[in-house]
Amino acid sequence: MVDLPDRTTQFIDWYLAVVEAAELTDKRYPVKGLNVWTTYGLRARRRLDALLVQEIERTGSNPVEFPTLIPQTEFAKEAEHIRGFDAQVYWVTRGGETPLDVPLVLRPTSETAIYPVFQKWIRSHRDLPLNVYQIVNTFRYETKTTRPFLRVREIHFFEEHTCQVDDDAATARVRSNLETAKAIVRALALPCAFLRRPEWDKFPGAYYTVALDVPLGEARTLQIGTIHHYRENFSRPYGLLYETATGEQRYVHQTTFGLSERLLGAVVAIHGDQKGVVFPTSIAPYEVVVVPVPGAGADVGSLARDVADRLGRAGVRVVVDTGDERPGAKYYRWELKGVPLRLEIGPREASGGSVTAVDRLGKKGSIPIATLEAGVRGRLAEFDAALYARATERFSTAFRRVDSIEALRDGRAVAVVEWCGAEACGHQIEAAVDGSLLGTPEAPLPLPTLGEPRSCLVCGTAAGTRWAVAGRPL
Amino acid sequence: MVDLPDRTTQFIDWYLAVVEAAELTDKRYPVKGLNVWTTYGLRARRRLDALLVQEIERTGSNPVEFPTLIPQTEFAKEAEHIRGFDAQVYWVTRGGETPLDVPLVLRPTSETAIYPVFQKWIRSHRDLPLNVYQIVNTFRYETKTTRPFLRVREIHFFEEHTCQVDDDAATARVRSNLETAKAIVRALALPCAFLRRPEWDKFPGAYYTVALDVPLGEARTLQIGTIHHYRENFSRPYGLLYETATGEQRYVHQTTFGLSERLLGAVVAIHGDQKGVVFPTSIAPYEVVVVPVPGAGADVGSLARDVADRLGRAGVRVVVDTGDERPGAKYYRWELKGVPLRLEIGPREASGGSVTAVDRLGKKGSIPIATLEAGVRGRLAEFDAALYARATERFSTAFRRVDSIEALRDGRAVAVVEWCGAEACGHQIEAAVDGSLLGTPEAPLPLPTLGEPRSCLVCGTAAGTRWAVAGRPL
Repeated sequence: MVDLPDRTTQFIDWYLAVVEAAELTDKRYPVKGLNVWTTYGLRARRRLDALLVQEIERTGSNPVEFPTLIPQTEFAKEAEHIRGFDAQVYWVTRGGETPLDVPLVLRPTSETAIYPVFQKWIRSHRDLPLNVYQIVNTFRYETKTTRPFLRVREIHFFEEHTCQVDDDAATARVRSNLETAKAIVRALALPCAFLRRPEWDKFPGAYYTVALDVPLGEARTLQIGTIHHYRENFSRPYGLLYETATGEQRYVHQTTFGLSERLLGAVVAIHGDQKGVVFPTSIAPYEVVVVPVPGAGADVGSLARDVADRLGRAGVRVVVDTGDERPGAKYYRWELKGVPLRLEIGPREASGGSVTAVDRLGKKGSIPIATLEAGVRGRLAEFDAALYARATERFSTAFRRVDSIEALRDGRAVAVVEWCGAEACGHQIEAAVDGSLLGTPEAPLPLPTLGEPRSCLVCGTAAGTRWAVAGRPL
Repeated sequence: MVDLPDRTTQFIDWYLAVVEAAELTDKRYPVKGLNVWTTYGLRARRRLDALLVQEIERTGSNPVEFPTLIPQTEFAKEAEHIRGFDAQVYWVTRGGETPLDVPLVLRPTSETAIYPVFQKWIRSHRDLPLNVYQIVNTFRYETKTTRPFLRVREIHFFEEHTCQVDDDAATARVRSNLETAKAIVRALALPCAFLRRPEWDKFPGAYYTVALDVPLGEARTLQIGTIHHYRENFSRPYGLLYETATGEQRYVHQTTFGLSERLLGAVVAIHGDQKGVVFPTSIAPYEVVVVPVPGAGADVGSLARDVADRLGRAGVRVVVDTGDERPGAKYYRWELKGVPLRLEIGPREASGGSVTAVDRLGKKGSIPIATLEAGVRGRLAEFDAALYARATERFSTAFRRVDSIEALRDGRAVAVVEWCGAEACGHQIEAAVDGSLLGTPEAPLPLPTLGEPRSCLVCGTAAGTRWAVAGRPL
C-alpha cells in the first residue's frame, strides 16, 4: 500500500507519487527528464493517440512522419523561430568518430523539418489545402525542473501542419482545429479555456497563438495544447509558393495544431484524487476490472472469467484480477490505477444472478447478469457523465473575477481581469499574479456573471478593453 | 504515367522507382538516408505495426517505450556490443550552447537503454519471465548506400527484450519468437529462411543469432529480422540478478527479437512486379478500390458509393476513386499502389446486379451485389492465397544446391552447401560467393531433394558437416 501525499496541500508531491504508484511511468532512467513509458501508461497513451487520430482525420488531415534530425541549415531559416528554440535544442555533432559537416538538431517541433519538403509538394492551388499531421517524439533540453508527462526532455507529440490559400482559409483552419480540440478535451472530460496569447507570449514565428489551458488549483494553470496561425511567416523563408487559378505566384498561409503527452498528465492531475488516478473511459487501458471474491460453495473464479469473456466479446476493455491477494488489496490497487468500473463477484453474486458494480467515483449498484453488456455500458456512460460534471464544477470555481491589482496578489484562483490590451498594463498584471497574462478568451469563459468588460484594471482605459485571464503556468 | 525500370534486369532501380511512384516514401528530405513517410506508406506501416503488436502480445509480451537517448556511460558497458556499434552511432554532445557532461547516443538498438532499468525491475524469480517489446525509431550513421526501407539512417524498429530464469527458458523464448516470426511472415505472404548465423556474423554481444532471410533474385538476400540468445552476456555487465526460490542469486538469461521497416521493403521487393507494388491484404492501406466507369444512362457514381459504404460497414478498408481521370488511368494508378482488389462499376454492372472484380494479380471475375461482402472477402482470400503460392514458388527456385567452389562463383541463386562448421572453410565459401555464409537452417529449407549432408564442400570433412546457406546480403 502506498500512502499518497495530500492532493490539496502537496499537489506536486501527490502528482509525482501517483504517476509512479499507478505504474504510468518509471523515472529511474539514468538521464533526468527522460522517463520510461511502462506498460500501463503506454496503453493509456495508445488510447489517447487513437483518439487524436480519429478526431483529426475526421477533418481531412492525413498522417505523415518526417525525420527526427533537422540540418542546422534548415533549422536556422526563420529568425524568430530559431531564437525561440536555440537555447533548448539537442545538437548531434558526430556520426561515429566523424564530425558532421552540418550539425543536426533533434526536432524540438517540426516546422523546419517539414517545410523544405512542403516546398516540393506545393505547386498549384490544386495542391491546397494541404493538411497533414504526425505523432512523433520531440526533444527539448529543459533547464526547468522536469515532471513526468508535464515537462520532459523527450515529448510524445502530436502536430498538425497545414498550408492554405490565404489568411481567411488559415483562420478557418484555426477554427476547425478549435472544434477538434473541443471534441478531444470533451472525450477526456477535461473542461478547458481557449485563450489567445498576448503578442509577447506567442509561439516563436507565429502571427498569433491560441492555447488550451486547464486550471490546476489556486492560480496554477497548465497549457495542454496550442493552435497557431503563421500567416506567411514561414512560407516566405521556406519559399512555399503556389500558382493561383489566374497564374499568380502567392505564398501559402500556414497553421499548426500541437498536443502532447501533457494531455495524459492533465487527466491525472485534474481527475485524480486521494486514492489515485481516475481515467475517463475514452483512454482507460481497462474500462472494467472483474474481481472474484472467494466464499463458501461458489465457483466465483469461473463466473468472473465468463463475465469478462462476455464483456470482451462486446468490445469492452476488461481485465480479471485472479491474483492471490485478498479482494480489498485488489480494490485498492485498481482504484490507484483509475479503472472506471469494478465488478465484484462473490457467492452472493454467483447465486443471485447479478454482479456488484462500483465505479471509480464510488457509486455502487448491481447489474443483472442477463443484461450484463448493456448494464456495464450504461454504468460506464453514467461514470463518464459524473466525471465530466465534477470536472466542470471544479473548472468554473477555479476562476475568479478580480478587479484590483491588490486582489490579484492573493493567488487563490485563476484571475479574470479587464485589460486594455497594452503590453505595459499586461506586464503589471503579470507582476501582480507572479505569473502570466494567459490571453483573451477565444470561446466564452464559464463565468455567467461576467457581462461586458468596461475599463482596464491597470490604467482605467475603456476603449478596447477586453476580458483576459492571468495565472501561474506550470 | 511512370515507366518503371525493368524489374528483372535493373532490380534496384526498379525498387527505387516503385517506392516513390507508389507514394510510399519521399526521399527528397535534405539529409541523405533520412526519408519522409508519406501518407500511403505510413498507413501500410501502421497496419504492419498492428500485425506485430497482435502477434507478440499473443505470446504474453507487454509494450514499453524507453528513451531515445542513451548516456555514454551505460552505452559502453558491454564491450563487444559497443565495438559493434561504435562506428555507426550518432552522438549528441550539446544541449543549447552547453556541452553535455555525459554525451548521449541516439539509440542504434536499445539493450543499453533498457537493461539499467531492468536492473531495478528484477528482484526475484517471481519477476520472471520479463517479456517486453517496443516499437520505436532507431538511428544508425550508415556509411553504405541508403535505400528506402532497406537501409536508412532512422529506422522504424520493433524490438522485444526478455529476461528468463536460465538458458533453457531463454532457448524456449527463442523458439516462441520463431513461431511468432513465422506467423508474421505468413501474414505478409513472405516465405522466409530461418538461419543460425555463424559465430563471426552474430549480433555484437550475442551468444547466437537466428536471422530471417528472404531471397531477392540471383544470389542476393535480405535480412528482415533477427532473434538473439544473449545468455548472461548483458546480464553480467548490467547486474541483472534475481533470487531463486531457494535464495540463490543468479544472472538472468536474455533474448531479443528484432524486426523493422525492412519488412515493408521486403513486401515491395518480393511481391512487386512491372506494374508496381502488390500488397497482401494484411497490410494494404486499402484492400479494395472502387472505380466508377461512366456510361450512358446509369448513375455509376452513386452505386460506387453504395458499394463502398457497404464494404466499409463490413470492416473492409475501401476507397472510391471519384476523380476526373479516365478509368484506365485510375486502374493504372491503383495497380501501381498495389491495392489487392479493384471493383469496376459501369452501366453494365449498374443494370446487371453484379460488379466486375479484378485482383492485383490480374484475375478477373464478377461478384453479385446481393452477396457483395462475402464475395469480396472470398476474392481477397483467394488473392492472398495466390500471392503466397507465387511467392512460395519463387522462393523455392531462388535456392540452388551447389557442390563445388567453382559453381559457387556463378552467383545465379542463393547457394545451399555442405559445410563442416570450421571458420576457415566458411570464409572460403564467402570468398567464392562474394558474399556471406548466412548460416545453418533452424527450420527445414524448401528443397525437397536435400537429404543428409555428407562432407564439407571445402575440406571434405564428414564429421559435423551440416547444410548451410550462402548468398550476397543487401
